[in-house]
Amino acid sequence: MNFIEKLTNATRKNKSLLCIGLDPDPKRMPKNVGIFEFNKAIIEATADLVCAYKPNLAFYEAMGNEGLDALKQTVKYVPDDIPVIADAKRGDIGNTAKAYARAIFDNFDFDATTVNPYLGFDSVEPFIQYQDKGVFILCRTSNTGAVDFQSLKCETEEHSYRPLFELVALKASQWNIYGNIGLVVGATYLEELRLIRQSHPNMPLLIPGIGAQGGDLAATVRYGVNAKGEGAIINSSRGIIYASPRKDFAQAARQAASSLQEQINYFLSTFIP
Amino acid sequence: MNFIEKLTNATRKNKSLLCIGLDPDPKRMPKNVGIFEFNKAIIEATADLVCAYKPNLAFYEAMGNEGLDALKQTVKYVPDDIPVIADAKRGDIGNTAKAYARAIFDNFDFDATTVNPYLGFDSVEPFIQYQDKGVFILCRTSNTGAVDFQSLKCETEEHSYRPLFELVALKASQWNIYGNIGLVVGATYLEELRLIRQSHPNMPLLIPGIGAQGGDLAATVRYGVNAKGEGAIINSSRGIIYASPRKDFAQAARQAASSLQEQINYFLSTFIP
Repeated sequence: MNFIEKLTNATRKNKSLLCIGLDPDPKRMPKNVGIFEFNKAIIEATADLVCAYKPNLAFYEAMGNEGLDALKQTVKYVPDDIPVIADAKRGDIGNTAKAYARAIFDNFDFDATTVNPYLGFDSVEPFIQYQDKGVFILCRTSNTGAVDFQSLKCETEEHSYRPLFELVALKASQWNIYGNIGLVVGATYLEELRLIRQSHPNMPLLIPGIGAQGGDLAATVRYGVNAKGEGAIINSSRGIIYASPRKDFAQAARQAASSLQEQINYFLSTFIP
Repeated sequence: MNFIEKLTNATRKNKSLLCIGLDPDPKRMPKNVGIFEFNKAIIEATADLVCAYKPNLAFYEAMGNEGLDALKQTVKYVPDDIPVIADAKRGDIGNTAKAYARAIFDNFDFDATTVNPYLGFDSVEPFIQYQDKGVFILCRTSNTGAVDFQSLKCETEEHSYRPLFELVALKASQWNIYGNIGLVVGATYLEELRLIRQSHPNMPLLIPGIGAQGGDLAATVRYGVNAKGEGAIINSSRGIIYASPRKDFAQAARQAASSLQEQINYFLSTFIP
């Protein structure tokens, strides 16, 4: 089963567009709980509420080998029918991109990854060659710095001018020969999210930026989904995994996830019959 | 001593602008030679010929914990007076970029790193906050895909149009409040290299793309250096470390490095008196 099928199945089975970001930060985790132990408890408490999990590799790399071992265990521990997306944002020249793709897809056995488009097609190609895996190209990121370059008006091949992130989305759709490319579009830029969904009705969108980052949930759901009310992967990390700093963190995570899932489904029901 | 001072000292002591890319690939390494053993032999054979070493993290990540252990040993093994640049090309939102900066500068103790500009200032800031470390922002990369986005003509604040890579260089120079930012500009795009050096006479340039990638060495030296004939870090990886596939790989690497160092110094002498 390829990534897109796995994602669709999990979305339907769990009636969920919610993705939980597994970003362990020792400063915010309960005391005396190991990294894998923390993730395992979160996964056990939420696996029936999500369409995907998304560990960001930075948090594991910051903890050295111990972190990377915990990451490997975490990916393995997620039930087989829930896809796991590596938030890695890699981008390098062809020869090197191949090594990153091996690390992410072969060593860690992730179902999908995020990649950075700045280096162009040959930096993305080694990832999409894994045709069963998903590849989410950064388009419009959720941070304030996104405007620095992503908003620049750039000349198109037809000599009109469009913001860089729209040209990234256009190229991504042209590169999508295996049907395994998606886009990352932050919930903090709703008009941009609306535009991207309008121009790319079928591409899966990975949407960070709700919760701690402040994106509006109702509009995110409305603008993010495809015509079937699917194809949006709405990520929350800190708001769920740190819902409680105490021993009851997993229960609290379940409550936060369940509440978010319900809100998303409620907003969906207001416009998808 | 900060990165820039360390780089300048190594450049002068070894009379060298040469940087060796330590990118171990088991398919090309001699048989029965471990990763660290391979790097150690290369470093011992070349430490008096270079201004820096540059391991690309992808190759180590592709080999899992064994690779990352070897990377840590390698960074430690490089003599203290030679800077080591992490070719990591990371780029993520502020909270996450901090974790990457910790991984690279605290865990691995690199002297500098490469970063991707697509996410804007808050993705670069956590790296430059390490004021003793160097931060090389990808500007014009050496690969064929570089043209996909980096060449797009973008509107400037003065409503003229310049290629994206020039705007990246301009922003990088505006962000350079601690004097620790450099740029990555590939030797495979010589006119772009000339332009960037002209507009940014004092920024250190990390220049990949000679050797296996085919960049012209004489023009790279001419266009890459600052007015003192310094400030260019000319990287070669495969042409040096795989100069021989046999047991004599370290000797062969020394010969290849020495010959490249001499050529660079010869080209320098033709225009720097």
